[in-house]
Amino acid sequence: MGDTLLGQRVDAIRRLARRGHPAPLAKVVAKARAEDVAAVIGHLAAQEQRLVFAQIKQDSVAADVLSRVHGDDFFHLVTDVPPERVAALLTHLPGDDQTDILERLPEAVREAVMARMKGDERAEVEELLGYAPDTAGGIMSPTAFTLRDDSNCRDAIAAVQEASDQELIYYAYVENEAGLLVGVTSLRNLLTHPPSTRLVDIMSRDVILVRTETDQEEVARIAGRYDLLAVPVVDDAGHLVGIVTVDDVIDVIKEEAAEDMLLMAGVRQHDEEHTGNPLWAPAKRLPWLFVTLLGGLGSSEILHQFAPLTGGDPVLSLFIPVVMGMEGNVGIQAATVTVRGIATGRIDTALAKSVGAEVFNGAALGVVFALVIAGYCWLRYGAPEVAVSLAVAFFAGMTSASFVGTAVPLTLRRVGVDPAIATGPFVTTAMDALGLTIYLGTAALLLKSTGA
Amino acid sequence: MGDTLLGQRVDAIRRLARRGHPAPLAKVVAKARAEDVAAVIGHLAAQEQRLVFAQIKQDSVAADVLSRVHGDDFFHLVTDVPPERVAALLTHLPGDDQTDILERLPEAVREAVMARMKGDERAEVEELLGYAPDTAGGIMSPTAFTLRDDSNCRDAIAAVQEASDQELIYYAYVENEAGLLVGVTSLRNLLTHPPSTRLVDIMSRDVILVRTETDQEEVARIAGRYDLLAVPVVDDAGHLVGIVTVDDVIDVIKEEAAEDMLLMAGVRQHDEEHTGNPLWAPAKRLPWLFVTLLGGLGSSEILHQFAPLTGGDPVLSLFIPVVMGMEGNVGIQAATVTVRGIATGRIDTALAKSVGAEVFNGAALGVVFALVIAGYCWLRYGAPEVAVSLAVAFFAGMTSASFVGTAVPLTLRRVGVDPAIATGPFVTTAMDALGLTIYLGTAALLLKSTGA
Repeated sequence: MGDTLLGQRVDAIRRLARRGHPAPLAKVVAKARAEDVAAVIGHLAAQEQRLVFAQIKQDSVAADVLSRVHGDDFFHLVTDVPPERVAALLTHLPGDDQTDILERLPEAVREAVMARMKGDERAEVEELLGYAPDTAGGIMSPTAFTLRDDSNCRDAIAAVQEASDQELIYYAYVENEAGLLVGVTSLRNLLTHPPSTRLVDIMSRDVILVRTETDQEEVARIAGRYDLLAVPVVDDAGHLVGIVTVDDVIDVIKEEAAEDMLLMAGVRQHDEEHTGNPLWAPAKRLPWLFVTLLGGLGSSEILHQFAPLTGGDPVLSLFIPVVMGMEGNVGIQAATVTVRGIATGRIDTALAKSVGAEVFNGAALGVVFALVIAGYCWLRYGAPEVAVSLAVAFFAGMTSASFVGTAVPLTLRRVGVDPAIATGPFVTTAMDALGLTIYLGTAALLLKSTGA
Repeated sequence: MGDTLLGQRVDAIRRLARRGHPAPLAKVVAKARAEDVAAVIGHLAAQEQRLVFAQIKQDSVAADVLSRVHGDDFFHLVTDVPPERVAALLTHLPGDDQTDILERLPEAVREAVMARMKGDERAEVEELLGYAPDTAGGIMSPTAFTLRDDSNCRDAIAAVQEASDQELIYYAYVENEAGLLVGVTSLRNLLTHPPSTRLVDIMSRDVILVRTETDQEEVARIAGRYDLLAVPVVDDAGHLVGIVTVDDVIDVIKEEAAEDMLLMAGVRQHDEEHTGNPLWAPAKRLPWLFVTLLGGLGSSEILHQFAPLTGGDPVLSLFIPVVMGMEGNVGIQAATVTVRGIATGRIDTALAKSVGAEVFNGAALGVVFALVIAGYCWLRYGAPEVAVSLAVAFFAGMTSASFVGTAVPLTLRRVGVDPAIATGPFVTTAMDALGLTIYLGTAALLLKSTGA
């Protein structure tokens, strides 16, 4: 009991797995929760992972563990398991977890496993596999605790008592004769009203619901906004077809946050997840680095254009890194704040307000840093033209970097692209070119006019 | 009913508020949920926000709205509200929401409001305010549905029926004679066993719990791992003092994800939140930009050292931006993957494995891009020494960038600092200096040896 003892058990599993002692390992594994075994597996090498998994005696626990491990770890566990065994393990899981596991299997294995499933389970899974994985249909659990609108509290409690253990009862949903979802009430409400109370008299008719095709991010936003433990999912006709439970909502929120963050750094989601080939991970980062490379070569072409100028004034080149670094950073800050604002729903119609605020920030920071850099340049090298060019480049560059950093994600979102997508590399690249051009362009004008 | 009608209502409130029509606005507000009113307020100007808030007739709804608005919006709403009114609104909220609102008020206002609260409510709030806001104690709801270990299912259901509406019943917790938490069971379990069944016979004794001082991030991780609707919180003696409910867990997950992402870009959390002065937002970004500036000036000093070299070979300077850009980006990718890995708990003791994998990625990408850039330089400018220097700088730089990007967050975490803290700026700055030194250092060696 308690968090320290829990941690000790986790450590014990890890230690025994590393030493490869199956007998004592089996003992500790038998006492641990499936969640802990799954968490430990994430920290082990492939060989140790299979050793731990093999020690799980109960099929229901093994199935639960399998549904909780991610990425490569999942593949390490299932690689040598025959399709019959996977099919047997799946019978212990609810429909949404079955679908989740099947989706992650290579197609040939998936078909072999499904061929060995029982008819009704296979039919359910086939239906769930028909929904896009990032929609309400794709993450919902296909069972919901449903009652007819002519029942009373007594009937409802009897139904709870008779429901199978697998059925998740977060709320009691009420449907009418035509099978349409017309109301919802809580388990607690059923208890606090007299047994003969009709459900229609205590249910809420204003049901917050989503459709099977609703994006999972929207489902998570709705669950979060209304503090729901489960969100009912209806089909086009308005029939209740499942519920998205709060544990799946948490997974979606984590997944989307990770996706946003990795996308901003130009790493495609699930880089580190995914099977086999070690060259897969670097290969997936290659495209965005290519964008950066092209941007960098663009900058080198700009420098090439200004070569006579920089060749004539050695101090000018020294500040190229600082111009690029500052503007890229300001742009990334603006982009990050904007992407977060979009994700949390704070930026929406408040678009002009957001752009205005960020551009103001950029301009204010631009004034401060323009003075600092110009002062430094003057004191260090006594080059007035370079100092003025730096001041202009810092002020104009940081202001426009803020604008670009806010405008790019908002524009991407308008055209239906995930705003986080490579906002980092794109903004940095655009800023580099713009910053250099302002800096060297100003210097060219000044040095020409002073005849230097 | 349903998501489209919901959206329409939100639009209607916004439209009426913008036009400043109080009478029809009051009508629509009366029909809307508190959650929707709060969401709409996030999209309005300060004046419109106060107009909408003033139309809420029911105090319980107004209190609920107040507990759901964030940052500046919160201050816009409470600015003109007298302390007596705030105290009256607070009586409609549970203890954790009361504490949350009081924490956000300026100290003088907070004390004025608390002086007007009833004795028992104030005592509860004072106790909650004593916990650090980012711990289990700081986010818990101070009421838990608790039963004695000598009760049976009949007693338990009677207790549910008598509990106040404010009390959140997610699970039934069982305590012994000494008041220590000894077990937990679900509401459903109470229904599915015969009324005379003793709780000790159906409860789970292996209670997953946290202490009042447990970090909120850890609480969220535990709730997520074990799919809990509520996590019980105990004091040092083992007495149950409250529960952290899943809606608060969701808030923590969102908050921590936003914090990580903003910190990585060098923006301190709550930048855009917070009151009043418009210069506050840029001022908070200043420190990290200063780090970037110092890094940039460091690079300019390095360039200054190599000035005789770059002055002699004009092609050499052209590739400075691309060397800096690529290595910074590889470093940020490695850092982002590492920070996410730490946040999701996937990186822990698997430290060596993570560093190894990232360095391998960096080296693999380094080989590819070294060949590309050297080829480009050769074809474009026919400068063999520069081409070789670029190849060396790309390979060595991208490999070491991956190492630094992984090692910095892991080291920060070891010494107890949030690994996300300015990983971006620090890594980029370090990479810039390292990349430039490798590039120009190699060129110096080559050009000297070939006598160019």
